[in-house]
Amino acid sequence: MVHEARDPTYDARVRASFVRQRFMRTLGAELVSVRPGEVTIGFDFREDLTQQHGFMHAGAVTAVVDSACGYAALSLMDEGTGVLAVEFKVNLLAPAVGQRFEAVGRVLRSGRTITVCAGELRAMDGEKVTVCAMMQGTMMTVRGREGVVD
Amino acid sequence: MVHEARDPTYDARVRASFVRQRFMRTLGAELVSVRPGEVTIGFDFREDLTQQHGFMHAGAVTAVVDSACGYAALSLMDEGTGVLAVEFKVNLLAPAVGQRFEAVGRVLRSGRTITVCAGELRAMDGEKVTVCAMMQGTMMTVRGREGVVD
Amino acid sequence: MVHEARDPTYDARVRASFVRQRFMRTLGAELVSVRPGEVTIGFDFREDLTQQHGFMHAGAVTAVVDSACGYAALSLMDEGTGVLAVEFKVNLLAPAVGQRFEAVGRVLRSGRTITVCAGELRAMDGEKVTVCAMMQGTMMTVRGREGVVD
Amino acid sequence: MVHEARDPTYDARVRASFVRQRFMRTLGAELVSVRPGEVTIGFDFREDLTQQHGFMHAGAVTAVVDSACGYAALSLMDEGTGVLAVEFKVNLLAPAVGQRFEAVGRVLRSGRTITVCAGELRAMDGEKVTVCAMMQGTMMTVRGREGVVD
Repeated sequence: MVHEARDPTYDARVRASFVRQRFMRTLGAELVSVRPGEVTIGFDFREDLTQQHGFMHAGAVTAVVDSACGYAALSLMDEGTGVLAVEFKVNLLAPAVGQRFEAVGRVLRSGRTITVCAGELRAMDGEKVTVCAMMQGTMMTVRGREGVVD
Repeated sequence: MVHEARDPTYDARVRASFVRQRFMRTLGAELVSVRPGEVTIGFDFREDLTQQHGFMHAGAVTAVVDSACGYAALSLMDEGTGVLAVEFKVNLLAPAVGQRFEAVGRVLRSGRTITVCAGELRAMDGEKVTVCAMMQGTMMTVRGREGVVD
Repeated sequence: MVHEARDPTYDARVRASFVRQRFMRTLGAELVSVRPGEVTIGFDFREDLTQQHGFMHAGAVTAVVDSACGYAALSLMDEGTGVLAVEFKVNLLAPAVGQRFEAVGRVLRSGRTITVCAGELRAMDGEKVTVCAMMQGTMMTVRGREGVVD
Repeated sequence: MVHEARDPTYDARVRASFVRQRFMRTLGAELVSVRPGEVTIGFDFREDLTQQHGFMHAGAVTAVVDSACGYAALSLMDEGTGVLAVEFKVNLLAPAVGQRFEAVGRVLRSGRTITVCAGELRAMDGEKVTVCAMMQGTMMTVRGREGVVD
C-alpha cells in the first residue's frame, strides 16, 4: 500500500512527538525510519525488560509496536491534530528472544477520524529473524483537544 | 465467579514468578493481592513511563494488566506447569492519568490448555477512580517445556 | 454502570433500526429488551446456523452479539446520528450449545465519537445457562453521512 | 509464507468439513480454493444478509472470514484432529458493499496446539476490489475429544 502524507512536515512531526514519549527512552527504543504510513522503531535486548522466563515482556513488546503503529498513523494526519490509540490486539507468535528487535507499524486504512494499523515485532537472533508478535489496532485523529496535539 | 485453586501453593507460586518478572520491577509494579483466579498489581505514576501527552503509555498499562491476567490464570493452573500469553486485546477508555494505578486480572474460563481472562486498569486521581483500560485475553498452560515453568 | 439516554426516543429508534437489519430476521433473532446502554437480543437454536460439529457457528453468535453491542451504543447517541462497528474481538469460552440463546450488549464508555462495548452470549440448555462468548468492541457515532442514519 | 501439509488428505478433509458447516450453506458461501495454510471462500451479495444501512452485516462477514481462517488452520493439522476457534478480532475497514465477496484465511504460525491466522474480506464491486475487513485470530487443534474431529 502506498500512502501520501497530507502534512509535508510529517517526518519532523513524528520525530518531535517520539522524543516526548518518555517511555520509549526508558525502554531504550529509537526511531529507525519514518515513511508516510510506515514507521520502524528499534531496541536492544535488556534484562530489565524481561518476563519470568527471560523473554522480552509482552508489555514491552506491545509498547514499542503500539508506538510504531501510532506514529505510522500520525504520519498521514492533518496538521494541528494529535494521535491517540483507541484499541489494539496482539498475538504473540513466538517468545521474544534475540539481541535486537524492530517494531514495524503500517497503516492499513487512513480515515478522517479512524486509522487502522497493522504492526509486527521482529526479533533478530544472530542471523535469524523471527516475527514474534502481530498487532491489529485502531488509532484516532484528535482535533481541538488541548494537550493532545502532535 | 468463584474459582478454586488446584495447586494449594498457588499464592507462593505466583509471588515467586512475579519476582522473576524483571520488567515489573522496572515499572515499579508490585503485587497487591493474589486470590484464586484474581490478581491485583499496583504501581505509581512516574514521568519516565509516559507517552507524548503526559499520560501513562498504553504499553506500560498493557504490561501490568497482562501480568495481572497471566498470574490470575497461573493461580488456577496445575503444579509443574507454566503460563504464557497467547494474545490480548486492550481498549483504552480514558487517558491513564492519576497518582496511582491498579491492574486487576480475572479468570473468566479456566480450561486444561486455554484460560480466558478479563483485566482492567484503574487510575486513582485523588478520590476519583477511573477505569482507563479493559483487556480481554487468552493465556496458555504450558506443560513439559524446559524453561517455561512457574 | 448507569447510563442516561440523550435522545428520549432511543427505544423506538433502536427498534426501527433493528427491523431494518435483514440479517437478524434471517437468523430468527428478535429484540428482548432495550435500555439506555444495554440491549438484549434472543434467538433459538436452528440447524441451519451450525458449524461442522453441530454447535452454533461463531459467526452467527458474533452477528447477534455485535448487533446487541451496536444497539446498546445507539441507545445513548444523539438524535440524527448513525452507528457503525469499528472493530470487535470475541473469545469463545464454550461451544454454543442449547435450545435458546441471548446476546447482551452493554456500553462501557460512551464518548462523542467512540463508544466501547462489552457483549456476551448466554446459551440456555434446559435449566443450565452458560456464557459461551465474550465480546469487547468499538462502535462509532456517524454524523452527516448520507445513508448512515439510525 | 510457504506451508507444508502434514496430512496428505488435507484438501478432501477441509472440503468434507466445510460441507458439514450448515451455516455456510445458509449464507450461500462456497469454497473457492484450498491450499496448505490458505483457504478462500466466496459468496454473493444477498439482501437477507444485510445490516440496517444495506451493507453486508459484520456478522455475516465475520462468519465467512472465520471459516476461511479455521480451514486454513485445519489444512496444516495432523490427521484425526479437529479445529475450534479460540478467539478472533475483526477491524471493519470499509462498508461491505459489492456484488461478490471473497474471504481469504491464512496461517501466520502453526503450532502443535495453537494456530494464529490472518483473514481478510475482499468486496468486488464491478471492477473495483476493496478490502473491507481484516481478522487476526487464534485456532486450536483439538485432540481426543468426541464429536470434534474434522
